[in-house]
Amino acid sequence: MWKICCVGFGNVGQGLVRILEKKRDKLKETEGFEYIVTSIADPIKGSAHNPAGLDLTATLKLLDEEGSLKNHPDATERETLDIIADPASDLVVEATITNLETGEPGVSHIKQALASGKHVVSTNKGPVSVALPELLDLAKANGVSYMFEGVVLSGTPAMNLARDALAGCDITRVQGIVNGTTNYILSRMEDGMAYDEALKKAQELGYAEADPTGDVEGWDAAVKVQVMAKVLMNRPLKVTEVDRTGITAITPADIKKASAANARIKLIAEVGEDNGKFTARVTPMEMPLDHPLAGVMDAVNALTFTTDHLGDVTIVGPGAGRVETGQALLTDILAINRKYG
Amino acid sequence: MWKICCVGFGNVGQGLVRILEKKRDKLKETEGFEYIVTSIADPIKGSAHNPAGLDLTATLKLLDEEGSLKNHPDATERETLDIIADPASDLVVEATITNLETGEPGVSHIKQALASGKHVVSTNKGPVSVALPELLDLAKANGVSYMFEGVVLSGTPAMNLARDALAGCDITRVQGIVNGTTNYILSRMEDGMAYDEALKKAQELGYAEADPTGDVEGWDAAVKVQVMAKVLMNRPLKVTEVDRTGITAITPADIKKASAANARIKLIAEVGEDNGKFTARVTPMEMPLDHPLAGVMDAVNALTFTTDHLGDVTIVGPGAGRVETGQALLTDILAINRKYG
Repeated sequence: MWKICCVGFGNVGQGLVRILEKKRDKLKETEGFEYIVTSIADPIKGSAHNPAGLDLTATLKLLDEEGSLKNHPDATERETLDIIADPASDLVVEATITNLETGEPGVSHIKQALASGKHVVSTNKGPVSVALPELLDLAKANGVSYMFEGVVLSGTPAMNLARDALAGCDITRVQGIVNGTTNYILSRMEDGMAYDEALKKAQELGYAEADPTGDVEGWDAAVKVQVMAKVLMNRPLKVTEVDRTGITAITPADIKKASAANARIKLIAEVGEDNGKFTARVTPMEMPLDHPLAGVMDAVNALTFTTDHLGDVTIVGPGAGRVETGQALLTDILAINRKYG
Repeated sequence: MWKICCVGFGNVGQGLVRILEKKRDKLKETEGFEYIVTSIADPIKGSAHNPAGLDLTATLKLLDEEGSLKNHPDATERETLDIIADPASDLVVEATITNLETGEPGVSHIKQALASGKHVVSTNKGPVSVALPELLDLAKANGVSYMFEGVVLSGTPAMNLARDALAGCDITRVQGIVNGTTNYILSRMEDGMAYDEALKKAQELGYAEADPTGDVEGWDAAVKVQVMAKVLMNRPLKVTEVDRTGITAITPADIKKASAANARIKLIAEVGEDNGKFTARVTPMEMPLDHPLAGVMDAVNALTFTTDHLGDVTIVGPGAGRVETGQALLTDILAINRKYG
């Protein structure tokens, strides 16, 4: 019986609990997975704690109605770090809104959980970008797992695919379309739009933010390169060490030139290691049309793994917008359940 | 320390041992996996058995030189079923040449191993087609695993992807290109060849056999539909219950008609379950060009999983010809090692 502590309880945390509740019987039957949620700590909505397990139906209803846990029967004023360390839970779900430059408050939450001997699952990009090697070491020292499937391709299996399904292969290179917003913009430019027009369209659809820098300058993709470099090739990097070019300089003429060469321009995130030469970069590349990544259009994500035993293996997923919120956390939780359950 | 018994020691069995030997140190370090091979039983090459572990370098060298184990220092005349049951091993690799209609000798080997409380990994299509439900029940009753990743997409993760990386999702439909030979023939017909010419080319390249019926009439794909129906949807089927149409009736005019409709004809293996209506079929379909399977050309394999939480997830692998022999068995062995090791 897993005892879960949810830190940050917005769309992602609530989404996880909704699918856990919906699939409670099936997960017990097929995976032998059982759980209670002992604690919820959210910086805005407040906190609730009950070592016997919170009433999740009532909790979700209260949040729908009041947006706050203030009137929760198990409401508590305890500090988040104190709740995380409480022995009532053994698995912490970290899903706070976190600063990408400092990694906080996520880094502190995750450190506290790992140091308390708890497994951590998280979709939080800040901590992996700022402190991944340190956090993995801390997890190892405490005999627990820190998993973060959702960071690279939202819910589409990427890290879990590399670890389980490609087990036994050496991965020598990964090339991917890991940012849905820029792939959407490039897809519209294929249709004939100019960059500004395509960006505006992406903003209207909610793919791009008002300040699109994080996407269009490649910062989001660079964080994902960082994660893949560390996890797949044990190469810790700062995000600033990723060779990074965005898509802001791409013109309709570039798109046409690629098309004439039977290719499409894609913003490719890449990590590779050939004969000791290490590559970690985000850059627009002309991908030949017969490459599986060339056919990936709109806000869809994909990764091509180059391996010794299987050649190239490509996974194409639905991209952030179409993933059931919480699925990436669920995959990680079930992997932990298989290993330790 | 796993003690492995190899039954059938042709290309596949030897390929596995070669990659196990090549990666011995790495697999110990990254997966905590250690092994000896205690027994080899091959109907043609003969058998060798040593509970302390065979000298694998010497064994492979002997087979290269003499093609037989007759002069092996640990050669034995014992029957294969007797060697399989010997307590010296705890994991059996079944890779014999097996009759697809009777499933023998594979079925008897696998039953003997499971009944003796041993895990079984196999790339053998015969036993899964003839006896999968029975073999899975026998494995369960004996508290061991029977795994067969290589049956569906050769080494490309298909069953392991569904089990691990898509854990927590309900899979409602799988559509795939699971037979490289027919996809190669259809790809050449896209280039303008007639069916007969394309088949001849496939035969020259070794993709198609002299009697191509198993591939071009969809029997090979139908066995894979059988496996997916049982494993992913718990729907046991006879291979004759799969609705099956091959590619022999496809004409250049059909290819052109599809092309004019922005589509490509692909031989699609499909299992699905929508509101209680169950589909299990192999049939040529016009796939729209923006579907990930439409872009899969030549002898490449691919599967699209339709799921509740992730929408469509597609995996594209290298296809049989380009897979390192033995990788599918290695993936399964490492999964068993994680679960029981």
